[in-house]
Amino acid sequence: MTLAFGIDPGLATTGYGVVRLTDDGELVAVAYGVILTPKEESLSARLAALYDDLNKLLKKFKPETAAVEKLFFSKNITTGIAVGQARGVALLALEKAKLPIGEYTPNEVKQAVAGYGSADKRQMQEMTRALLRLDALPKPDDAADALAVAITHLNTARYDLMT
Amino acid sequence: MTLAFGIDPGLATTGYGVVRLTDDGELVAVAYGVILTPKEESLSARLAALYDDLNKLLKKFKPETAAVEKLFFSKNITTGIAVGQARGVALLALEKAKLPIGEYTPNEVKQAVAGYGSADKRQMQEMTRALLRLDALPKPDDAADALAVAITHLNTARYDLMT
Repeated sequence: MTLAFGIDPGLATTGYGVVRLTDDGELVAVAYGVILTPKEESLSARLAALYDDLNKLLKKFKPETAAVEKLFFSKNITTGIAVGQARGVALLALEKAKLPIGEYTPNEVKQAVAGYGSADKRQMQEMTRALLRLDALPKPDDAADALAVAITHLNTARYDLMT
Repeated sequence: MTLAFGIDPGLATTGYGVVRLTDDGELVAVAYGVILTPKEESLSARLAALYDDLNKLLKKFKPETAAVEKLFFSKNITTGIAVGQARGVALLALEKAKLPIGEYTPNEVKQAVAGYGSADKRQMQEMTRALLRLDALPKPDDAADALAVAITHLNTARYDLMT
């Protein structure tokens, strides 16, 4: 049994997904959702709120391993910097919790979850739903992305974890 | 008397500068330097090292206010994301220390320190040296930039601080 915590970081919205890999090799969704930070607050206050909320979730679910989407390209530099700031805080929370951290590009996540790197958002959500045997598509999008990165991590690390 | 902590954030090298504004309106350099994080370590370990080192400096110098350079443009998106991650962690440290935080664009810093927004690096270092009455140009560059942003903050906030 392994419990993975996936994060899709963002300043306004950070998605998280907690997925268990059972001893039978099944994937089970334990929890998923989004952390929102209020636009009215200062950048530093929003980053601190994100950090505190992530720490609460890590304390609650006690995952053994974690995964974050790799940012290796963004069309919008301003968005890239904002997401980078949130991602830095998320990585810090995981490091302080002494978790091993996997980083995966969007393509690696698509490959691992849907079997091909050019899967679209809807296909990814459908595959995530099917792999986790959920009744409905996981929503909102950032939570679905976080579940997908947690699945990617568990499937990529499966061999290492089981031996 | 007001003590300001300036930061020029980066993943590999973060500059810091501690500047005092005396009751006579003089600027005094208290300390400056750089925090380095080793390339061999993981991204999250480097961010945690930066966070811990910043916290040590904040505990040591006990500044009353802080300032960070605003990233509003970077030619290299990959660099922008890396700096963004370090900047997020720096802002978190300042927020957790309950410091008021000023953010200034490179142009605002040049305007405040050298009197014109197109000052080059050498002119900025010379003006920083002169304003702080240092014997030599402050080095390395990231430390000089951090001193300049601290000076900008003290001069911008001077009216508020004194009344």
